[in-house]
Amino acid sequence: MRLLGIDPGSTATGFGVVEKAPAGLVHVAHGVLRPPRGASLARRLAFLHAALLEVIEEHRPNHAAVEKVFVAASPRSALVLGQARGVALAALASHSLEVSEISAREVKKGVVGNGGASKSQVQDMVMRLLALESAPPSDAADALAIAICRIHAGPLAGLGMRSRRKRRRFTAEEIGSRART
Amino acid sequence: MRLLGIDPGSTATGFGVVEKAPAGLVHVAHGVLRPPRGASLARRLAFLHAALLEVIEEHRPNHAAVEKVFVAASPRSALVLGQARGVALAALASHSLEVSEISAREVKKGVVGNGGASKSQVQDMVMRLLALESAPPSDAADALAIAICRIHAGPLAGLGMRSRRKRRRFTAEEIGSRART
Repeated sequence: MRLLGIDPGSTATGFGVVEKAPAGLVHVAHGVLRPPRGASLARRLAFLHAALLEVIEEHRPNHAAVEKVFVAASPRSALVLGQARGVALAALASHSLEVSEISAREVKKGVVGNGGASKSQVQDMVMRLLALESAPPSDAADALAIAICRIHAGPLAGLGMRSRRKRRRFTAEEIGSRART
Repeated sequence: MRLLGIDPGSTATGFGVVEKAPAGLVHVAHGVLRPPRGASLARRLAFLHAALLEVIEEHRPNHAAVEKVFVAASPRSALVLGQARGVALAALASHSLEVSEISAREVKKGVVGNGGASKSQVQDMVMRLLALESAPPSDAADALAIAICRIHAGPLAGLGMRSRRKRRRFTAEEIGSRART
């Protein structure tokens, strides 16, 4: 079970890949995708889409998770975040990845044990949980924390579908449609 | 000069392709892209991205235009619109199309002559201007109106770059960077 967590943003999108092994969590990769600053909005979004496809092709996750958005900010910032988030979701689904959504509060609670934890507390706990030598940058730490929480939340319908062992489980809908035919 | 106008939306995205010929405007194509209703948000956005790439590959525009967004609505609807808009912009830029942004008011004023025109007035004028036999659906009419307005707004730096005659003009930035080297 290999999870790709994404923390989308217009200037920086964090990603983190974590695997669930018999001995525990294994860190696979993390990073921050930063579109070229001077480029137009459309080009920055195309960069983000292409860069995420590369991440997926390189690390071949079998599930993805992004932060659920409770819009508290202004409509303007919601539009800007929405543009980056839409591109990230489209890239994930173009590789047929199922995408879970987890609230920031659940992520902080799951990783630090406190829904109001600070960014540096998340960075610190992600470093410990994955036995990293240094704390990842904040956007990447958030993405790794999302992946860790999704793993801790347990199996999902569809989670085994893209297993590299080619063992195939059916999702609820597939079973339903088979039962009907 | 062939313009692709896009009216992005989460449930329906209109597109319209219009060419500027010596004798006037020529209608090339229009349509409404509707992601499958029951699909997840991520899959609907991936559908939109793939469908727009098909439109671009089929009709080979050399410039694109989308509506400029003045966010008046709620943060929630701005997020939803932003997700579809981000995907549309990324698809356009992945084919190296320059994207102009035009406000809804400019579009209505340019096509109907009145910045407060109704949707049916836009549909009616688009039908007349392009000599169509029937009015296009509203989302497609808006996209065609955006393309028409962009053509009327005149040439832009970069507009000749993707001409199918392979004639290449330089954009202001390219000329600038050449002058500096």
